Order: sequence, then C-alpha cells, then structure tokens
Amino acid sequence: MKVKVLGTGLTKFGEHWDKSLKDLAFAAAKEAIEDSGLDTDKIDAVFVANMLHGKLTGQDHLGALVASNLGIVGGAFRVEAACASGGIAIHLAIQSLMSGTYKNVLVVGAEKMTDAGASEISSALMGAGSEDERKAGLTFPALYALMAKAHMQKYGTTRSHLASVSVKNHYHASLNEKAQFPYEVTLEKVLESPIISSPFTLFDVCPVTDGAGAVVLSSDSTQPGVFITGSAVATDTVDLSQRSSLIEIAATRQAAKEALKQAGVKISDIKVAEVHDCFTIAEILAMEDLGFCQKGEGGKFIQKGSTKLGGSCPVNTSGGLKACGHPVAATGVKQIIEITRQLQGRVGKRQVANADVGLTHNVGGTGGTVVVHVLQT
Amino acid sequence: MKVKVLGTGLTKFGEHWDKSLKDLAFAAAKEAIEDSGLDTDKIDAVFVANMLHGKLTGQDHLGALVASNLGIVGGAFRVEAACASGGIAIHLAIQSLMSGTYKNVLVVGAEKMTDAGASEISSALMGAGSEDERKAGLTFPALYALMAKAHMQKYGTTRSHLASVSVKNHYHASLNEKAQFPYEVTLEKVLESPIISSPFTLFDVCPVTDGAGAVVLSSDSTQPGVFITGSAVATDTVDLSQRSSLIEIAATRQAAKEALKQAGVKISDIKVAEVHDCFTIAEILAMEDLGFCQKGEGGKFIQKGSTKLGGSCPVNTSGGLKACGHPVAATGVKQIIEITRQLQGRVGKRQVANADVGLTHNVGGTGGTVVVHVLQT
Repeated sequence: MKVKVLGTGLTKFGEHWDKSLKDLAFAAAKEAIEDSGLDTDKIDAVFVANMLHGKLTGQDHLGALVASNLGIVGGAFRVEAACASGGIAIHLAIQSLMSGTYKNVLVVGAEKMTDAGASEISSALMGAGSEDERKAGLTFPALYALMAKAHMQKYGTTRSHLASVSVKNHYHASLNEKAQFPYEVTLEKVLESPIISSPFTLFDVCPVTDGAGAVVLSSDSTQPGVFITGSAVATDTVDLSQRSSLIEIAATRQAAKEALKQAGVKISDIKVAEVHDCFTIAEILAMEDLGFCQKGEGGKFIQKGSTKLGGSCPVNTSGGLKACGHPVAATGVKQIIEITRQLQGRVGKRQVANADVGLTHNVGGTGGTVVVHVLQT
Repeated sequence: MKVKVLGTGLTKFGEHWDKSLKDLAFAAAKEAIEDSGLDTDKIDAVFVANMLHGKLTGQDHLGALVASNLGIVGGAFRVEAACASGGIAIHLAIQSLMSGTYKNVLVVGAEKMTDAGASEISSALMGAGSEDERKAGLTFPALYALMAKAHMQKYGTTRSHLASVSVKNHYHASLNEKAQFPYEVTLEKVLESPIISSPFTLFDVCPVTDGAGAVVLSSDSTQPGVFITGSAVATDTVDLSQRSSLIEIAATRQAAKEALKQAGVKISDIKVAEVHDCFTIAEILAMEDLGFCQKGEGGKFIQKGSTKLGGSCPVNTSGGLKACGHPVAATGVKQIIEITRQLQGRVGKRQVANADVGLTHNVGGTGGTVVVHVLQT
C-alpha cells in the first residue's frame, strides 16, 4: 500500500452555535488542502463521512454539496457506517487511490449534533443499533453498560478501572486546544458524577459534539507526508444480542489482524494509538481486542499508566472521544489526523517521543463495523 | 479495467406492503450470489446503496446490517448520493476490486418508499436538493419542470416530445414482468393526465417505488460474466440556481466523456442504454448530453423511434424510472442489471439483437452527481 496523508485540517470540537455543518466541513477541508501543498484543482474526488445530517436537517447528497462548494467537479461520495463512518471513508478513499482511478482525494468527516435536542439526538444515534434494540428502549449508554457489567463480572474489572480511562483521556485533552473538554478530572470526580447507565457515570460517557476533520490522501509517494500502510474493515451483527460474547468485539480482532498484516508490523511496534472510547469500557475492550494486553487485563493495563503520555504506548493523546469529543462521523478522520500529526512531530505538549508507527481504531454501533488503520513515517 | 459482473438479482419493483427493506435487500442479494455461482464466503465486502431508510425509519448502519444477515464478515459500507446512490456504489465497489483489496464484492441497492405518506416522501426526497430550494418550496417535479420549460423555450421542444418518452418507456415496461407499471399508455393518455407541475402531467413523472437490485462484481476475469470497462463520476452544484445553464446537465457530459474514454468506445458503439428518466425531460437531456444526438434535438430523436426496441439504440428497455419504477438508491444498480442481462441475451421479449456494448447513466438530484458506466461482453 503506497498511500500517503499529505495534509490535515481540524476544527475545534465542541458546541458551534454559530456554524453550520457546511461551515465546519469547509473550514477543515480548506486547512487540509492548504496543509497538503496541493492546488484544489489537483483533488480528483471527495469522500464525505456523515451519519446524522439527513435525519436532523433533511439535507442529503453531501458529497456533491461539499465538493461543488470547494470547486471540485470530480467524484463525490457520502459514506456512512454509524460512528465508523469516518474510518470507512478513509478506507474507501484508499481503495480509490490504489485502483489508480484517482491520484489525490479529500476525505471530510463532519457532524453538527448540538442543534438537536437531547432526546432527538439520542433517538437519531440509535440508528446505529438494531430495530429490536430500539423497540426494547435501549440506548447506546445502556448497550455498552451491558458489556461493562459482563466484563466486570467475568474479569473483576472495577468502576475505578473504567474511571481511569476517563482520567487519562481528560489529562490528554488538557494538552489539546481543539478538545471539547480541555481540562483534567480526578478519579473521585468521575466516580461521584451522576449515574447515566449503571455502571457508567457522566464522565464514563462521550459527549455530543459539533466538529469536522479533513485529510488529503495521495498515491504520489514522492510528496512529503505520512504513509498509511494498513487499512482493514470487519463487520459483525448490528444487534448485540446476536453476538456470541459480550466481553469482546470480534470485528476489532479481525480488522486489527488484517491491518497489522498489511503493514507488516506487530502490535508491540505501535508507539501511539487512537482508539474508540465512546464509553470507558470501549477503551478497555479495545486494548484487549487489539492485542495491547491479555483479555480481561484491560482495566489494570490502563490504570497502571502504560497508555498515558510517558507510558510505553500512549493511547488517545487527542483526548479520545471522551474528552476531545465525538462528532460521530468526524471521529474516524480525527483519529487519522492525530496520528499523522504525532508521526510528523507536530502536536506540541502531547507529542509522543520517537513516534514512527501509529494505529487508529474506529467502531460503529456496538461493534457492527470496525475499521483499523496503521500509519508509518 | 478488468472488473466483471458475475451475478445479478432483482426484486419486482412496485408496492411491497408485506416486505421490509431487509426482505427486499436479502431477496436481491441472494439471487445475485446464486447467479454468480460463488459461495457466500467468497464475498469479501458489501456495498449498500440507500438514501431514505435512516430518515424514514431511523435505521442507519445498513452495510453491517445487510452483510451480517448474509453471513459476510468482511468490509461493509453504505453509500449515498441521492438518486445516484446505486451508481456510486457500483463505482466505489469497482475501485475496491481494482485496488486488489477485495476480489469479489456484492453491491445492493434498496429502498422502501411506500410506507411513508406522500408529503413525507416528497419532503425526504428534497434532501437531494439544496437548503435554499427547500426553503423556496421547490419539489423535484418543479425543479425539472423549470429545466423542461427552458428547453421548450430555447429549442421548441413540445409536450408531445416529452410524452413520447413516457409512451416508449411504458411500452418497454409492458415486456418486463419486474416493472411497476407493465402496461402501455397512449400519447393522448399522457397529455391528458392531470398536471403535476407544468409542463409535466402525471405520466411525465416517475413513481414512488419499493425494490432492490444486487450484483456480484469480481476482479477475476476468468469467471463468466460481463465486463464493466468504464466507470466515471462527475459532480456539479446541488442547487440548480447556481448552474450556468438550465438546458444541459454538465456532469453528464463530463462523466460520459471519461467513461467512454476508459472503455475505448464511442457513443455510436453503444447498442443499448439505461438512462435516468426521473422526468421525461431528463431522458431528452440525457440523449443530448451523452452525445446520442445534438443539443436541442433530443425530443425529435426520441419521437422518431431511434431509442425504442427495434431502433438503432434502444434506451430504457427495462421501462426506465418512469415505468419500471424508481426505488431511488436501487435504480443505479437496476440499470447495471438490465444492461448486464441484455449483454447476456437474457431478457426475452425486450432483447436487443447483437447487444455487445451498453451504457448506464444515473443522476443524483438535478445533476449534482452523475455516474456513467460502460459494459461490454
């Protein structure tokens, strides 16, 4: 695979009351194109990742909308796989470059969530789950809470283990000016915040966020940039109740195995990673299923500091979904941006020393879709 | 380009009160896989084209939903570009095969529209247009009526020219058991049916339809099947008022030029075509912009019978969107199915003799996205 990230652009994540989805998408896209050093007319196609805009505002057809407003007349596509929309947009963009059809493409992930009310957004997000889950009144906090409870019961994972994910990611976010919540929290604060869905408190749960990220990808490996050397997608049942196990995400294992194989690296080669921590249990599962630690050991592994800045492999240096924020379809693109910038040595106070191999892990629903990428200098 | 259509599957188009989107998608997918001769475990990825299901029912994440229900655990993607969703799904699936990442992929286009009320579906479809168009109260019949009026004024195109598209496509549909309206209509009936948006009467306008189509595509050119030799996408402004001209669809010209170039054929080599006749004027514009006739001559060209079965290049032998029906995201896939089956000599009474090169033309909105494919034996 000879695909490079030539440029990256990212808006502040948070509440953008004065901006539309278009505004956010264009801001990120323009920054990415400028950062790539390419003229806009060298961009052959645009991939737009978005989950919710059609539902919340009526507007579909975002590929052509974003492309034409940027003055791009080539291919334009919107892709969606719930919260993994950003990851599959990167994956499909890579295919289009490897095929030789396109030479330089723009991938934009964007979401405008705060204009909707709490119940409207909660209901819209359940589109990532199954019809039976919606009928049963389940929400995503509840679905992941079921997974957390099963993990606690089987492996002795504690609420403190869960909370340590949040504490770490808030610490990382405190070093990231683009983060929605750029401040630290204590373990006590996480444990004592209001219960959302037992065992989760408010600080175990990612927020509702507006934001956009964009990258310019190219098949021209002579340009300066970071290589994407592995890109794999795996799927599973959308409905959690149809899975054989609540304590692992099988699609993570499958996608990771394939992406690492493509890149020709082992999980122990990874120096920095962005993983899908929509809920604190999700980061524990990711550590285990990606192979950073043994199954059942995720909580202890995180609590001992291995994945904090300064540890052996810092995870979610952006602050993750929990503290950087989670504009759903933008997340997979933001993960690629964070790792690219880490590998370029551009992230200031949260820089990981000697970062030369990085990984991203993006999940749709409770694991119906998983996308894993490997990036290298 | 060495991509082949190995198998095709298509449900009846029409009103399926007793079936869900899932039922329709699975029926088409199973038929396509069976027709391909491949075992399901040889399918590496699934591309699902759908525009409206999230809006109308809440259910997103259709890639994983369809894939997992078929027992496929590889890549799964939903793609959307309004009424060109099916065409871009085929285009992106081709990229994934040409890249070498996947060897056999399934593309499913599916839509369940009749469960929604008339105003709900009309409003949902306006997601293909711009925010300003929605605010102005425009609907798609009205947008295309503006294009028709401009064409009539500039080139003397008449209501009879428009109606002749409908008469031809209903004749073709009368030979297609899968068509929503498998019966003939007279020119008088079209002209005298109720006005929908002047100059369009009821029979100038495509219907609301349930249906699904699926194809298995492969990079293995040793398998029996039909080659896709050209695949191109072009985009333009989503908002009609931002275009320089109402009497052409520039993206059609651009996509056709590129697809024909890829295939190494001229428009005069095309023996059979499926084009996007959402409104009768759209087929007239398609004939001109694809290069079948001169600009302004489309009405006369169609009226004289060149594109009717028996003519020099039959167009919309399926019955087109007008008479076969238009389950929006399924349409681009159905076009590939009809041309594949024509090239295989499998369409019975509507078979075009010596069909060896065919073309499909799929439009999103009023031309914000256009996809053109060339198929060859």
